[in-house]
Amino acid sequence: MLEATLEELARVGYGAFSMETVAERAGVHKTSVYRRWPTKADLTGAALQREADSTLCFPDTGSIRSDVVSMMREFRNILATHRGQSLVRMMLAEGPSPELAALVDSLRKKKEKEPKQALARAVAQGELPAGTDIELVLCTLIGALQNLYFVHHELPTDRRIEQMVNLVFDGACSGGGCRVRAAK
Amino acid sequence: MLEATLEELARVGYGAFSMETVAERAGVHKTSVYRRWPTKADLTGAALQREADSTLCFPDTGSIRSDVVSMMREFRNILATHRGQSLVRMMLAEGPSPELAALVDSLRKKKEKEPKQALARAVAQGELPAGTDIELVLCTLIGALQNLYFVHHELPTDRRIEQMVNLVFDGACSGGGCRVRAAK
Repeated sequence: MLEATLEELARVGYGAFSMETVAERAGVHKTSVYRRWPTKADLTGAALQREADSTLCFPDTGSIRSDVVSMMREFRNILATHRGQSLVRMMLAEGPSPELAALVDSLRKKKEKEPKQALARAVAQGELPAGTDIELVLCTLIGALQNLYFVHHELPTDRRIEQMVNLVFDGACSGGGCRVRAAK
Repeated sequence: MLEATLEELARVGYGAFSMETVAERAGVHKTSVYRRWPTKADLTGAALQREADSTLCFPDTGSIRSDVVSMMREFRNILATHRGQSLVRMMLAEGPSPELAALVDSLRKKKEKEPKQALARAVAQGELPAGTDIELVLCTLIGALQNLYFVHHELPTDRRIEQMVNLVFDGACSGGGCRVRAAK
């Protein structure tokens, strides 16, 4: 059922998504769907949650730069599939639906926990300067990948991803991402 | 007519957009609309083009960093309006329509010309290292802003925008954005 939900979300988006269609696709009676997931938001949340749990696991290679490179490559691999691309686009364009927006936010916050902790550890251990704005570093990296893919239609190679990470990490290492900037 | 087109695009998006509704809104007979803009793509293209021409003009302050800060602030100001936000979101989510995708691409390429030339000049004059990947720098900056706004729901302050530009420019200045990276 969750599998059919993801397929249908990728196909038609959240607005046009109907629980009846999904029940039909999965060969399940709709009352048994409603019993388990009373609303469209419940069903969508459960399906996206399962997908998020099984992907984008943050690695621990011993170096924050290569951890982040791995994370970005995994995200790139998701974008390379038709379903992944449609789901990420749906989440980016979620504007009109506050309930989808709330779902996406809670998923994102869960998924950000691990990379944020790793970046905070890197700051604590001196791999990145004290005062580095971890949230800004993360959203600059993810934003660069999303922009490259959704706006420039480029699915970045491994080499290109390294370059993106170097650009942002070199900036962070020289203090560019600090909240309060020392005079230069 | 172009004004009514932008309002309607922001309201319903490209998919649901109808030339009849716009003609009605603008108090114009639909045949006179079709005479000038035979298709929905023609009308949308003309309206977005006019909007793009009047906004996001790249400044020349003498320093590439402050030019880019100004550009990012202007983009932020567009996102701060309901219409600008809806139009940018529509362009980001343009996936299902190849004709809208083609329009958005051609607009984007026109608008990127000036910042790209300015960045290339900065490389030529030694403000940025030789070999800096200008396209990557630009899409990292714009991507960071889009991610912060559309994913994290943060409309960045002037200070925050400076910080974003510092992060990316410090990285570029230390060679992080170079296509071929010197061994460290």
